[in-house]
Amino acid sequence: MSEAEYADLLRRREQALGPAYRLFYDDPVHLVRGEGVWLFDAEGRRYLDCYNNVASVGHCHPYVVEALARQAATLNTHTRYLHENVVAYAERLQATMPDELDTCMFVCTGTEANDLAFRIARMVTGQQGAIVAEDAYHGNSMVVTTLSTAEYPAADRPAWLATVEPPNPYRGTFRYGEEGLGPKYAGRAGEAITQLARAGHRPAMFMSCGIFDSNGALVPPEGYYREVFAQVRAAGGLCVADEVQSGLCRLGDHVWGYQDSGVVPDIVTLGKPIGDGHPLAAVVTTRDIAAAFARKFSYFNTFGGNPVSAAVGLAVLDVIERENVLHRVHDMGRLLQPRLRGLMERHERVGDVRGKGLFWGIELVTDRATREPDRAAAGQVRDRLRQQGVLVGTTGPYGNVVKIRPPLVFAPEHAELLLDPLDAILASLG
Amino acid sequence: MSEAEYADLLRRREQALGPAYRLFYDDPVHLVRGEGVWLFDAEGRRYLDCYNNVASVGHCHPYVVEALARQAATLNTHTRYLHENVVAYAERLQATMPDELDTCMFVCTGTEANDLAFRIARMVTGQQGAIVAEDAYHGNSMVVTTLSTAEYPAADRPAWLATVEPPNPYRGTFRYGEEGLGPKYAGRAGEAITQLARAGHRPAMFMSCGIFDSNGALVPPEGYYREVFAQVRAAGGLCVADEVQSGLCRLGDHVWGYQDSGVVPDIVTLGKPIGDGHPLAAVVTTRDIAAAFARKFSYFNTFGGNPVSAAVGLAVLDVIERENVLHRVHDMGRLLQPRLRGLMERHERVGDVRGKGLFWGIELVTDRATREPDRAAAGQVRDRLRQQGVLVGTTGPYGNVVKIRPPLVFAPEHAELLLDPLDAILASLG
Repeated sequence: MSEAEYADLLRRREQALGPAYRLFYDDPVHLVRGEGVWLFDAEGRRYLDCYNNVASVGHCHPYVVEALARQAATLNTHTRYLHENVVAYAERLQATMPDELDTCMFVCTGTEANDLAFRIARMVTGQQGAIVAEDAYHGNSMVVTTLSTAEYPAADRPAWLATVEPPNPYRGTFRYGEEGLGPKYAGRAGEAITQLARAGHRPAMFMSCGIFDSNGALVPPEGYYREVFAQVRAAGGLCVADEVQSGLCRLGDHVWGYQDSGVVPDIVTLGKPIGDGHPLAAVVTTRDIAAAFARKFSYFNTFGGNPVSAAVGLAVLDVIERENVLHRVHDMGRLLQPRLRGLMERHERVGDVRGKGLFWGIELVTDRATREPDRAAAGQVRDRLRQQGVLVGTTGPYGNVVKIRPPLVFAPEHAELLLDPLDAILASLG
Repeated sequence: MSEAEYADLLRRREQALGPAYRLFYDDPVHLVRGEGVWLFDAEGRRYLDCYNNVASVGHCHPYVVEALARQAATLNTHTRYLHENVVAYAERLQATMPDELDTCMFVCTGTEANDLAFRIARMVTGQQGAIVAEDAYHGNSMVVTTLSTAEYPAADRPAWLATVEPPNPYRGTFRYGEEGLGPKYAGRAGEAITQLARAGHRPAMFMSCGIFDSNGALVPPEGYYREVFAQVRAAGGLCVADEVQSGLCRLGDHVWGYQDSGVVPDIVTLGKPIGDGHPLAAVVTTRDIAAAFARKFSYFNTFGGNPVSAAVGLAVLDVIERENVLHRVHDMGRLLQPRLRGLMERHERVGDVRGKGLFWGIELVTDRATREPDRAAAGQVRDRLRQQGVLVGTTGPYGNVVKIRPPLVFAPEHAELLLDPLDAILASLG
């Protein structure tokens, strides 16, 4: 594709999709092919994908594509006819979770899952409030967008919404080295409940991401979720684990992120990775909660859990098992941890490195003492890695955290291709 | 599949999906294969599909399946990288619409499309109200479910919502034979605006389905939408055409239902049929409205408009053109109209027959004079047609309207297979 053609595609895109759409990079990557951890642009240039969790078991995994194509050629209808796939998929998902979480409802996007979870929580508890982390992202339906505190204007927040300070031991109120970080940060939930009460509300739910993705990748400290869940439940609210980011083996110890904390949520929401790119998402909850919701409402999602979507979901779980993905992610986490944390020793600009499994955040600062966020440096790392054929992202409230979240089939031989240029770029920043 | 296996699948389904899920028929159809207008159950029994609009260009259309499989094997990522498909698809969709509607935003479900349309309308107008038809269905996100007045409890309606009486000339305030049905029913919009004003609200939008699907298939009378749109716009609201049911050639005269009324909506929402089963939906609006929304918000939907979804959408539009679908639906409408309306002459129980193209409602009554709805008879027609290998639905606020809405590739040779048993069943009801 010539430069003129590239410019024309950009112009046509802006014309056809309008100004609400954004692209990654000032000179966006024009991708045409994907395979495993690799993406290829229109010039045949290869990129190591260290960013996209949607392609969970790898871009265009042949086993998943085959399952998709086979079912799409056989039957694709909705869940008001009887079909084996949606039942089998629900059973397989439930088998990955604690026994209590035995009921699945299928939707198409993480937004729909979180919207339905909140709708269920309000109906079942009879309470209206919600508690989420500051700078969270949970999706963008009209209601869920207000829970996405990273983007939604603070001045427009509804009175039924309260936020908690996320457990950030590098930059938050309680820091690395202090005792009892979990309970200390969990105390924020009690404050949020009090704030809601002052506004005349009680919490229908507490919702949070298992790795605090948009907060710059935070691993919940020991005891955090146990304490938060206890406080929320004492106030009559449900606890919702948004596993769109932290789920499906991403953190390496368990299939789902909340399992690392030894808690059982009332509702778990699943999205992006479970379909390896196919629009598939789910709400998993207890029989009692589903039954309480069903006393007033039925639920039907035309595409949710259709035979094709369910076939894709089953195929992804097959790959997870057959390719021993959880074990491999665990090992990759152990391989990456010392290498990434070693960057802190060699580069003054690296203030913190945190994460687990295949989800890592590298926080860049202009000054280690003041911890002044260095957004520009994070952008440079991202852009220069791209020039060297490696795709990463930036995140966090200050945009100064380099986000590393590759497909789960990222392997030791790929790690060097990321770590060497990352080290060199950080060195060059001085 | 043995009876025991069938019962076991039903039991497993209830266990895994919970009580909020519903099935069609007391003894649900267990489908395993689809092809064109045909569906096949686990016993190899063939059903003529006269109900499913999702499979718009036919179940498992090989051209669409091939496009899906090819793109899924090549690349499936999101819209933050540059890709030809989403741009080409937006351009192709826009080419089917008036020039003003030149900006597309892609989502995965009709619910997401209507939720985003309302979100845009509120942000752009600065007004909070909504006007929809009584007994409407627009989806089921937390906000959109309140617009689905067919299901949402009337007692729980928010103060910002007002409804209009749908234009039903058989059962409504203004009846067949009266002059000026369009303007008369359109006057309900003015009343709704007044009702909102009394509650301290102004309308952000009026949203309606082009064929009033859940009202029992109503064809908007001459001048109706022109008048309604004028009143809503005078009150500062946007006009949203929900084309999830009436769109993609369904009504036979134009690609989109609103075009039959000679109006140009401010926002058009597209869903189900545009993906022939694949989770694909869209919001189409004007440049100005998209730009006004973008002044405050960006929009990103992980799966919406991804290369695979866009490839499917393009393939469906290809089929629409190549197979001359609009023209064929038009002709089918002309073939069906006299045959279906003829049922009124032969069967006392048929109170009204209405529709267009390939969307028809047959309203059953116990008594033509009182027009008492006969829900039981509609259920019998549906169930006995199923026994004879024909799938239809029932709809309307009284559940007494037999709904005929087959895939768009329903052809003259299929019509007899529907009409003969329908006629016989109606005769047998007495």
